[in-house]
Amino acid sequence: PAADEALLQQVLGEPGAAQRRAIAKTITLLESTRSDHRQRADALLTHLLPHSGRSFRLGVSGVPGVGKSTFIEALGLFLIAQGHRVAVLAVDPSSSVSGGSILGDKTRMEQLSVHPQAYIRPSPSSGTLGGVAEKTREAMLVCEAAGYDIVIVETVGVGQSETAVAGMTDLYVLLQLPNAGDDLQAIKKGVMELADLVVINKADIDPAAATRAQAQITSSLRLLSQHGSPDHAHHDDKVWHPQVLQFSALKAEGLDRFWQAVSSFRELQTANGRLQARRRRQALAWMWDSLHAGLRHRFTQHPAVAAQLGRITREVEAGTLPASTAARQLLTLFSPEPPVSH
Amino acid sequence: PAADEALLQQVLGEPGAAQRRAIAKTITLLESTRSDHRQRADALLTHLLPHSGRSFRLGVSGVPGVGKSTFIEALGLFLIAQGHRVAVLAVDPSSSVSGGSILGDKTRMEQLSVHPQAYIRPSPSSGTLGGVAEKTREAMLVCEAAGYDIVIVETVGVGQSETAVAGMTDLYVLLQLPNAGDDLQAIKKGVMELADLVVINKADIDPAAATRAQAQITSSLRLLSQHGSPDHAHHDDKVWHPQVLQFSALKAEGLDRFWQAVSSFRELQTANGRLQARRRRQALAWMWDSLHAGLRHRFTQHPAVAAQLGRITREVEAGTLPASTAARQLLTLFSPEPPVSH
Repeated sequence: PAADEALLQQVLGEPGAAQRRAIAKTITLLESTRSDHRQRADALLTHLLPHSGRSFRLGVSGVPGVGKSTFIEALGLFLIAQGHRVAVLAVDPSSSVSGGSILGDKTRMEQLSVHPQAYIRPSPSSGTLGGVAEKTREAMLVCEAAGYDIVIVETVGVGQSETAVAGMTDLYVLLQLPNAGDDLQAIKKGVMELADLVVINKADIDPAAATRAQAQITSSLRLLSQHGSPDHAHHDDKVWHPQVLQFSALKAEGLDRFWQAVSSFRELQTANGRLQARRRRQALAWMWDSLHAGLRHRFTQHPAVAAQLGRITREVEAGTLPASTAARQLLTLFSPEPPVSH
Repeated sequence: PAADEALLQQVLGEPGAAQRRAIAKTITLLESTRSDHRQRADALLTHLLPHSGRSFRLGVSGVPGVGKSTFIEALGLFLIAQGHRVAVLAVDPSSSVSGGSILGDKTRMEQLSVHPQAYIRPSPSSGTLGGVAEKTREAMLVCEAAGYDIVIVETVGVGQSETAVAGMTDLYVLLQLPNAGDDLQAIKKGVMELADLVVINKADIDPAAATRAQAQITSSLRLLSQHGSPDHAHHDDKVWHPQVLQFSALKAEGLDRFWQAVSSFRELQTANGRLQARRRRQALAWMWDSLHAGLRHRFTQHPAVAAQLGRITREVEAGTLPASTAARQLLTLFSPEPPVSH
C-alpha cells in the first residue's frame, strides 16, 4: 500500500523524529500476530534488506546483577561521542510473563534512552524464545536500514537466549562478575565457548578478585580451546583468540581498551572472511529455526493430529505404545503419504 | 504374517541360540529402510512392548582411550556371575562412515562377546544421530522383552551422542581419565551435568592424579548443582547426588563399590518415583524427536519445496531475502494453508 511506501521512505530517510516513528511503526507491524500485518512486514523487510547489514552487531549477555544496563549505557554514549548511531535491542523471552523486564532497563539507561543518536527498543513479548529472537533479528534489519551503524543486542542469562543472541551478532560479549564459580556456570551452559570477549565487570569493587577471575577464565578458555573448534586455536594469529578484559562500568574505566579489542576483532574477522561467513551461517540457521517452528505449529494445529495427539501421548507415557510407532502414526495422520524412513 | 508370529514367540521364549537368532532378525527388521520391513517391525514392537521395561538401563560414555570396552567387559562378567543377563548396545553415529568402530569394541570384549548370557549388538549404521538413537532404543525394547535384565548402552564421546544415551537410560555413567582439563571438556559439552555417576578410570596408573581428579570433579559437580536442577540439590537426601568413584578396569578393582552405587541409585530413584518419571519423559522426548525428524524429511522431500529450496537458500545466504520471509514462502509451498504466526 501507499502508506507502506511512505513508511519505507521515512525509515530510509533523514534521522529525526519522523524516522524514529517510522522505525517504531515498522517494528510494531513485524511484531504483530495479524497475518495482513505480517504480509506487509514481509514486503517492507524485503525492501529494507538491501540497505541493512552495514552495521556492526554486538551481542551482550550476563546474569542479572552483572551490570548490563550500566555497561551498555556507558558504551553507547562513548560510541555516539565518536560519531556512531547506536541501536539497542533486547531478547528476553521472560518479558511476556513479567510484563517486560527490559523496559526497566530502558529507564535505567537514563541518558542513552533520550539521546537523539540512540534507538532503544524493549524485547518483543512473544511466548517462545524462537519467536522473540526472530522479531529481534528483523528489528535489527530495520535499524540498520535506518543507518544505525552499531547494533547492540542484549539478553539476560535465561534459558537459551545467549545462544540466540550469539547467533545473530558479529561479536558476542559475556559479562562476568569476579565471583568464583560464575565462570563454571557459563562453561556449563555452553555460553563461555560462544564468547569472543569476556568482560569482568565491576572490577573496581574488588580488584584482587577481578584479577584472579581474569586469570581463571583465561586459563579456562585456553583449556576449552585445546580440543575445541579451529576458530579458537591458539597457534594461528589469523584467527581471533577470545580475550578477557577487566572493566568498571561505574567509572567508565576500560572502555577504550574494550573498543580497541572490538575493533581488532572486526578487522581480523573482515580480513579473514569469517565475519561474512558467520553472517551467512546465521541467516541459514535462522531460516531453518523458522521452518522448524512453522512445521511444528502446522503439525499440532492439523485437525486429524490435534484430535489424536492427546490419546497417543498418553499411550506413549503409559508405555503401551512405542514412541517411534506413535510418531509414525501421527505423521500418517498429518499427511497420507507413505510412512517415511529416516 | 505367520513368520513374525513365530519370531515373536522365539524372542519371548527360552534363552538360547534360537532366541538369539530371533533377536538379531527382529533388530535387523527395525533397522531396515524398507517400508514393509518397517511396518512389520512396528507390529512386532507393539507386541513386545508390554514385556519390555523390566530391565535396568545403564548408559556409559567416555572419550576414546578412556577404557570403555574393558570397563563394560569387566562389569558384564561381574553381573553375569551374579545371575543377570546382560545386553550391550551402542550408539555411534560415526559408524556408518568408519564401517563400524564398535565392531572393534565387540571383538575387544573377548569373553563377554561369546558368553551365552550376554548379547552384544554393534551400533546401527544410519546417517543421523537421531536415526541411530531411535534404532538403539527399539533394540533395547527387544532385548528387554527377551529377558535381558541389564541393558548397557555405550557411546563414544562424539557430537551429541552422550545426550542421546543419557536420554534413553536410567543411570548415566561418565568415564573420565585422571587428566587435568578433561573434566572441563565434559562440563563444556554439558555431559558432566548429565552424569549420575562419574568414574575415574585407569586409577591404578597414577593414584595421586586419580585422587586429585576425584576431588576436582566432586567440587565441580557441587558448584554446578548450586544453581542447577533441583535433582542435584545437596541438602535433600531423598534425591540422588552424583558421585565420583575411582576404578581400575584392568584389575577389576572397584566393581563392587560401583555396583553398590548403582543399586543405591536404583533403589532411591524407584522409591521417590523419579525412575518412572524419567522413563515417561524419555518416551515423550523420543516421540517428539521422531516427529521432528519425520516432519523435516517430508518437508525437504515435498516436490514444490524441493524445487525451490536451493534457490531460496542461496538468496538467504546472499542476503537478498530475509530468512523469516524465506521460511514463510517455503511453508506456503509445503502446504497452501495461510502463513502461520508463532
